[in-house]
Amino acid sequence: MSDSRMAASGLADAMAGDERAAAIAWSVIAEGADEAAAWLVGELGPSDALVWLSDAQADPVAATMRLAPLAQPQTIDKAVAAAERWLARLVEADPAAHLRRAQAVGARAVTRVDSEWPEVLDDLGARAPYALWVRGAGNLNELMARAVAVVGSRASTSYGEHAAAEIAGGVSDAGWCVVSGGAYGIDAAAHRAALTGPTPTIAVMAGGVDRLYPAGHSDLLTGVLDRGIVFSEVPCGFAPHRSRFLARNRIIAAAAATCVVEAAARSGALNTVSHALEWGRPVGAVPGPVTSVSSQGCHRLIRDGLAVLVADARQVLELAGPISPDPEGDRAGGFGDAGQRAAFDAISKRGSRTADVARAAGLGIGEALAALAGLELAGLAAQRDGVWRRREIGRK
Amino acid sequence: MSDSRMAASGLADAMAGDERAAAIAWSVIAEGADEAAAWLVGELGPSDALVWLSDAQADPVAATMRLAPLAQPQTIDKAVAAAERWLARLVEADPAAHLRRAQAVGARAVTRVDSEWPEVLDDLGARAPYALWVRGAGNLNELMARAVAVVGSRASTSYGEHAAAEIAGGVSDAGWCVVSGGAYGIDAAAHRAALTGPTPTIAVMAGGVDRLYPAGHSDLLTGVLDRGIVFSEVPCGFAPHRSRFLARNRIIAAAAATCVVEAAARSGALNTVSHALEWGRPVGAVPGPVTSVSSQGCHRLIRDGLAVLVADARQVLELAGPISPDPEGDRAGGFGDAGQRAAFDAISKRGSRTADVARAAGLGIGEALAALAGLELAGLAAQRDGVWRRREIGRK
Repeated sequence: MSDSRMAASGLADAMAGDERAAAIAWSVIAEGADEAAAWLVGELGPSDALVWLSDAQADPVAATMRLAPLAQPQTIDKAVAAAERWLARLVEADPAAHLRRAQAVGARAVTRVDSEWPEVLDDLGARAPYALWVRGAGNLNELMARAVAVVGSRASTSYGEHAAAEIAGGVSDAGWCVVSGGAYGIDAAAHRAALTGPTPTIAVMAGGVDRLYPAGHSDLLTGVLDRGIVFSEVPCGFAPHRSRFLARNRIIAAAAATCVVEAAARSGALNTVSHALEWGRPVGAVPGPVTSVSSQGCHRLIRDGLAVLVADARQVLELAGPISPDPEGDRAGGFGDAGQRAAFDAISKRGSRTADVARAAGLGIGEALAALAGLELAGLAAQRDGVWRRREIGRK
Repeated sequence: MSDSRMAASGLADAMAGDERAAAIAWSVIAEGADEAAAWLVGELGPSDALVWLSDAQADPVAATMRLAPLAQPQTIDKAVAAAERWLARLVEADPAAHLRRAQAVGARAVTRVDSEWPEVLDDLGARAPYALWVRGAGNLNELMARAVAVVGSRASTSYGEHAAAEIAGGVSDAGWCVVSGGAYGIDAAAHRAALTGPTPTIAVMAGGVDRLYPAGHSDLLTGVLDRGIVFSEVPCGFAPHRSRFLARNRIIAAAAATCVVEAAARSGALNTVSHALEWGRPVGAVPGPVTSVSSQGCHRLIRDGLAVLVADARQVLELAGPISPDPEGDRAGGFGDAGQRAAFDAISKRGSRTADVARAAGLGIGEALAALAGLELAGLAAQRDGVWRRREIGRK
């Protein structure tokens, strides 16, 4: 056994049963985009996954057999094939060393066993980060529990920056946290506006939080740290590689809703959107002039039914938050007329489009529109993305 | 019997059996928004409706009895109550006199029995106009058969006018006729751009076509007349009252699709939209800056699922025309991979949203998106308003 293999084995043994230390080690060993690692750690837990890794170098066949009951052979083959790559990093993964390095810049590690762990990340299943490296005065779990992602192109227009600022300012005013990536363009406009509001903002970095990236935003990100949070899933010292930006986007997308302010047809912001949809989060997109390439991605999302058109912070928060029924609404006798009653009854449990309501209620489109608008005003129905739903009292 | 009553009775008798003359008379007698007249003429036909009207002055009770089998009492009561108002106009309704007046400005009358009658108006049922008063060199039926309404606020921005011009120019270039109302703002920008294209444009007036309204557009509308058409449902000499603008909008909305370029929250253009939806026509809305009140109505339509976001002429024409399948597409073997095959099979006959396809095909949202995008590129599926449909060869 080589010295480095012995060192790896010793580290794995030292962390046996210590899920926090093991999770921190995995944040060093495996990238956020490493699906084989996500599967292995998800199946075994961080500590047992480390033990498995240590065993795998000694006896690959036994290691394969151990996983056999858990998945299809191709999944297991991938984990076994990746073991060498992970082992190479395991020797560098001493949690104590990484924690010391983090402490030098005032950062802390947060894992699933810590109270500050953002519960919203549990919705990512095995694809949640192993650990987070966190700087700043805020409480990460509390902020992420009421957070909206405001994202968009680095190549933003002044229109887009204005719209981002209006929305982010309104989100902060409403007591919701603006999460973004700290990048130039829309991200920066969103953070800046949020900083003027009452609610702390969060910037999620692609590289380690010892290096506030991009360098041109060190003032902005220092401002974020003052009351809010800058965090990353990679330890201090890790560079912001391109693949880490893509992996980082899945964490931003864990916010209650994602709002894309400006995005060209192939903008990276659309990557964040696809993650948000994967996590079952609603997506809003801000329209802009059809003459602006910076709005093409937003228009495409709206046309494809992947995002709801949003024009202001209120509409973004409608996506993020529970629909609160009008407490004054008298459900039993609240119908303005027979058309409203018929339209209400015609709304199916799973939601109905206007034309479906008209057909089911035997109303003309114009009548159905009028009736539904009346129901909306009375707080008895709400419409989102073209689909009408009855408002359920106490619905979350 | 008074002289005027005798004159009315004589006119009705003279037109007995002449549906064309009777329809022309009804275009004098009743406004486009007169639902009681629309019902009566729809039930009896123009000529018999005139005979009924003539009889109604002599014997209201018998007239009521005659209608009794046709509708609920309240509908019949409305027609009987309206008879006096119609009779007052019947004495002025001599078709020969109105045709002479029209001929003086080079206008012709077109009724349902004429070959130039636009067949698309038959979709309006009883609410189709009785007759059209038509000026210009084009053939109304041929132009309306391939027409798109491009409408919007009079209070337009230069952005909106630019967008209207781009869309109308592209529509005309594609061989489709731009229909609008000849008003200031978006209407004018659309007509003007269409005039530079190869396809004639149509302006629908709220008042008589002897008076090109608004006066400031007499040059523009004269240009429309040169190759296209200006028409109205009201005879020459009738003023463009406000109620006639609203009635006129239902005719514009008979085009294959309606595109709203700019509309404030309470714009009259939204009235055209509600008619288009009533006639089962797709509606497109052009987005704009969220900071522009002139785009608020468009954004609302998109949010409410009443309109599809459209950014250019191609997207407008997608709404209006048949989706032409890719003739090169090899249907049987055209699937790029198993995901595409599964996604294709998961698209229901009535159309499916992306999330439904994912669920039915057992794919993740990201996988489903990729598969559907592949199907779209291969010409095997098309998406409109968030709903995916298989492309049917030969589908109209």
